[in-house]
Amino acid sequence: MPKVLAVNAGSSTLKWKLFDMPAEVELADGLIDRLGQPESNVKVKYGDKVYKDNHPIENYHEAVISVSTQLKDLGLIDHLHEISGIGHRIVAGGEHFKESVLITDDVLTRIQELGAFAPLHNPVEAKYIDIFRRMMPWAVEVAVFDTAFHHTMPAENYLYSIPYEYYQKFGARKYGAHGTSVRYVSQRAAEFLGQPAAPLRQIVMHLGSGSSVTAVQDGESVDTSMGFTPLAGITMGTRSGDVDPSLLAYLMDCLDITDVHKMIDILNNESGLLGLSQLSNDQRDLENAEETNPQAKLALDIYANRVAKYVGSYAAVMNGVDVLVFTGGVGENGADMRARIMQHLEYLGAKIDPEKNNTRGKEIDLSTADSQVKTLIIPTNEELMIVRDVYAREH
Amino acid sequence: MPKVLAVNAGSSTLKWKLFDMPAEVELADGLIDRLGQPESNVKVKYGDKVYKDNHPIENYHEAVISVSTQLKDLGLIDHLHEISGIGHRIVAGGEHFKESVLITDDVLTRIQELGAFAPLHNPVEAKYIDIFRRMMPWAVEVAVFDTAFHHTMPAENYLYSIPYEYYQKFGARKYGAHGTSVRYVSQRAAEFLGQPAAPLRQIVMHLGSGSSVTAVQDGESVDTSMGFTPLAGITMGTRSGDVDPSLLAYLMDCLDITDVHKMIDILNNESGLLGLSQLSNDQRDLENAEETNPQAKLALDIYANRVAKYVGSYAAVMNGVDVLVFTGGVGENGADMRARIMQHLEYLGAKIDPEKNNTRGKEIDLSTADSQVKTLIIPTNEELMIVRDVYAREH
Repeated sequence: MPKVLAVNAGSSTLKWKLFDMPAEVELADGLIDRLGQPESNVKVKYGDKVYKDNHPIENYHEAVISVSTQLKDLGLIDHLHEISGIGHRIVAGGEHFKESVLITDDVLTRIQELGAFAPLHNPVEAKYIDIFRRMMPWAVEVAVFDTAFHHTMPAENYLYSIPYEYYQKFGARKYGAHGTSVRYVSQRAAEFLGQPAAPLRQIVMHLGSGSSVTAVQDGESVDTSMGFTPLAGITMGTRSGDVDPSLLAYLMDCLDITDVHKMIDILNNESGLLGLSQLSNDQRDLENAEETNPQAKLALDIYANRVAKYVGSYAAVMNGVDVLVFTGGVGENGADMRARIMQHLEYLGAKIDPEKNNTRGKEIDLSTADSQVKTLIIPTNEELMIVRDVYAREH
Repeated sequence: MPKVLAVNAGSSTLKWKLFDMPAEVELADGLIDRLGQPESNVKVKYGDKVYKDNHPIENYHEAVISVSTQLKDLGLIDHLHEISGIGHRIVAGGEHFKESVLITDDVLTRIQELGAFAPLHNPVEAKYIDIFRRMMPWAVEVAVFDTAFHHTMPAENYLYSIPYEYYQKFGARKYGAHGTSVRYVSQRAAEFLGQPAAPLRQIVMHLGSGSSVTAVQDGESVDTSMGFTPLAGITMGTRSGDVDPSLLAYLMDCLDITDVHKMIDILNNESGLLGLSQLSNDQRDLENAEETNPQAKLALDIYANRVAKYVGSYAAVMNGVDVLVFTGGVGENGADMRARIMQHLEYLGAKIDPEKNNTRGKEIDLSTADSQVKTLIIPTNEELMIVRDVYAREH
């Protein structure tokens, strides 16, 4: 059977999964971490086994060679030719890419150009595309964009109230992110409920270290909390989400910062749960600490508050809601955070069963029998969505 | 009867109203506009008469002399000594001022210091306080803060998800604005309904050239859309409201702007309805144009969308809503905009009667008989609230 690789590359990490297609069997789940540092970490989960190693991996090219070596050494493939397709997660697709596409030279150039919208991601992803195509020129390469699912947002939701020419000239608008995850989860939610996606009004809470809330109507994204970049929206692990824009100017004066990008770095990397709690960006750490540490409790309360506010606003966008869906690391596993969020949402007629809420990482309807809104956990699977897109374009 | 003056000063305008107290009879409503320009405008409405004049008024001191001359020349008072009190609207009260206060030297100093939070307003207001006290040293002067009503917001609503020390060291948090208006309107709404404020969950939409949405529970502000400054929140006449913070850095690069304050100026003065429509910051102009001008329609749709989203999020904050209140120039008079907003909110059980909605500028319950939420127009009266606060501190 042909094997398809899903690749999720960052500046210092390379995550990948190998699938047998069209059976959709996940064969392996790999990670290279701390790339370019003296001790890079390699980890591959396959079957019920785990392979781990530490050795220096200096650059993207070495990382790809390392993955291909792991694939052969662990017996996942006999020869690289078995890999018929590779799907690349691309952060920024701008307005041009409305769905996954076969990678051509022209597509690669456009992905590089869209680096203006995601300077930390698109250029790196473009480099990996180039390395993989040189190493496996027979494989179909497909770009799967984090923004594509949100291309259905209407202008009244994607435009900011700024001079219109900034949208026309510079593409300054909301693009959103987490689109591949929300596409998978919202499709699965409809299937799980045994209902067509068409008349459903869903609100998908993808809660992890990066977090977003998306309104999905008739199977299409109509609004999402991330914005021009993934900094906007709700509180995240280290990202601030929304703030008064004036605050940037005020804080730059207070902190004697002259480069606005430095201020954005602080909002991306030193804020969110970490900045509020001054303890950790990980909700589990904060939950363990909150009984004795009021800052930890406050950070968690603010996180739940921001999620609930976006859910409330998206109920207004769709004039109601039929289904609430939790996904992402925290959404799938964080029973306490789910309960905190749902406390705010009883007015929508949404009630969950506390017993059922003690579930981790599997599909379940959490709703009580008398709840007017269905509340589900649907574990996300971006990689499956990616390899499905690759397979569809191979055939 | 003692007369009390309410003063609302800006950098180039001085608005005032004179009241007979405690009868709360409005004697005159005055405005000096284009202060410091070759032709300043003077306008006073008193009884059913209007006095207008154009002459150069060069500075704040001349403006106060002009007001006192108008008061005498128009027969509103015989002698300045009849004015027993003066209430000053102050934009930024920070965390210190939780209610209106008698102005002492110490208070004046603090108002000046809070200029860091409102550089265009507090310093000017402080100067007017000083000029009035020199001219009418017998009069009680009271500072009425735009932020004070919001001091009851809980930390989970007023804190941004930024490093906590920025709040501790620099006071970087949400303060809100329009507080005096919302205090008046929410009290009146409860009176109008013949209900105690205590168990009511109100959402007050103060819609004008500056616009805000506030959640009022048990008579207290619990959350509001304006933020550290009045730039945040919903779309306004020329203000952007919320944007992805990253957008500032991106646009500064695109526009070759190096001073972040210049970028904030654009978001304050060239954005909002004006920036989106490229036509006008005035909703009436846009409503007149929208049939033939898609940009005008889009700007109005976005405005309604942003208001509705905040209403939705505040329903989540209070776990429901009992009363929606429209106030401010657009809220009181803009039947079309009210209808646009309410279209989004039927899911809350809020329905208005289209006939009743054809009302301009007076107190009315717009709700249909079967509406589960009361929707009111309550014309605001910040000046009445100001002179009430002065009178209470005189006696």
